[in-house]
Amino acid sequence: MSKTGTIYGVGLGPGAQDLLSVRADRLVRGGRHIAYFRKAGRPGQARRIVEGMLHADVVELAMEYPVTTEIALTDPRYNECLSAFYAECTQRLLAVAETGADVVVLCEGDPFFYGSFMHLHSRLAGSVPVEVVPGITGMAGAWNATQVPITWGDDVLTVAMATLPEAELVRRIRDTDALVVMKIGRHLPKLRRAVEAAGRAEAAWLVEHAAMPGQRVTRLAEVDTVTPYFSILLIHGQGRRP
Amino acid sequence: MSKTGTIYGVGLGPGAQDLLSVRADRLVRGGRHIAYFRKAGRPGQARRIVEGMLHADVVELAMEYPVTTEIALTDPRYNECLSAFYAECTQRLLAVAETGADVVVLCEGDPFFYGSFMHLHSRLAGSVPVEVVPGITGMAGAWNATQVPITWGDDVLTVAMATLPEAELVRRIRDTDALVVMKIGRHLPKLRRAVEAAGRAEAAWLVEHAAMPGQRVTRLAEVDTVTPYFSILLIHGQGRRP
Repeated sequence: MSKTGTIYGVGLGPGAQDLLSVRADRLVRGGRHIAYFRKAGRPGQARRIVEGMLHADVVELAMEYPVTTEIALTDPRYNECLSAFYAECTQRLLAVAETGADVVVLCEGDPFFYGSFMHLHSRLAGSVPVEVVPGITGMAGAWNATQVPITWGDDVLTVAMATLPEAELVRRIRDTDALVVMKIGRHLPKLRRAVEAAGRAEAAWLVEHAAMPGQRVTRLAEVDTVTPYFSILLIHGQGRRP
Repeated sequence: MSKTGTIYGVGLGPGAQDLLSVRADRLVRGGRHIAYFRKAGRPGQARRIVEGMLHADVVELAMEYPVTTEIALTDPRYNECLSAFYAECTQRLLAVAETGADVVVLCEGDPFFYGSFMHLHSRLAGSVPVEVVPGITGMAGAWNATQVPITWGDDVLTVAMATLPEAELVRRIRDTDALVVMKIGRHLPKLRRAVEAAGRAEAAWLVEHAAMPGQRVTRLAEVDTVTPYFSILLIHGQGRRP
């Protein structure tokens, strides 16, 4: 029997191809088995980032989410459905690794920072070699897009998801110097109310498609349309600066 | 008169050379003028990361901090001294750019995340073209070193500096799911007391020299020596995981 392959969880960074790390670039270009998550019927953001980089003989393994927003997070079926999905993905990756081939799993941003790969990583642990390649986070792409530093001196940075309850968002926004909010999507109206209630509306920026062709940086007050899932809200810290 | 050069603030990532982005790698290898901060008499962490990568004809511009821990942060002379230093560094970089040459300023981690380059960036703005290249943060290097994801689902992540007052650290540690503490150095005893007071001692890890040869991941409870400035404390989130 051949040696077991390694499964690589590779952080792609915020979106530009030249913001992949040298290590990630090498793995993506050289990989013969490339896996990625996507919503059914969509190209998938991770796959889109590496367009044109893949090996001519690549075998692609698309892992299509069975649900995203159709079932409420609080519905127990949501967890059951996703759990079965991640277990099935794990089996698909293991089946390739057991032939001796390596698999590169594409991960937007950094794989260990609110990423889906973590749900495979925890299931793969102990079965096959797994290596994670860190990436530039989406939020770093976002604050670089604003051309303003996110934190200075002793600033406290809070990273929160827009999926939190409104009152909790208000409390978090009031109690921090710098702020990053992700997973915005349909939670934008709630997030906007929370930022206003916390008295920070003038300081809040929305970054869409950071480090990608459609990059857009807008004051939250001027945003009117529902933004894609990949939008990030920022409030910059104002800490000590000699 | 020749065209003005561009000043690049280039994020190097946590420490490994192949964790530079492709864009940063290209700028560092091709740069003829390379600048970096360091403490007088030390090689400097940023310079150490790129050892062996620089062009044969490179001109190095070392910017040596006049103070680091000799003057208390609260002493007004601290700010005056650093402010004069950053102004002088800005003039040195401008003098090179005005000859038409580009300058690459090496930045550990990400330049806009608690970095010294920000103090040059704010002084350079408007005088010459400045471009910032994001990098993998030191904290991402640290949580990847633990091989455990830092945040899941709706986890709140708090990033705080160990320079904060002890009571404030306790409050922050109590009120978060996941935690990153940086700028530890001589604040380790205070930080340890704060983590214990918050009841999180069992969950806290200290990562030293992430992504570098001396990488070490230790439970905070087992750390006894004073750690270098580049150590990072982590508490992993335990959020939703289907």
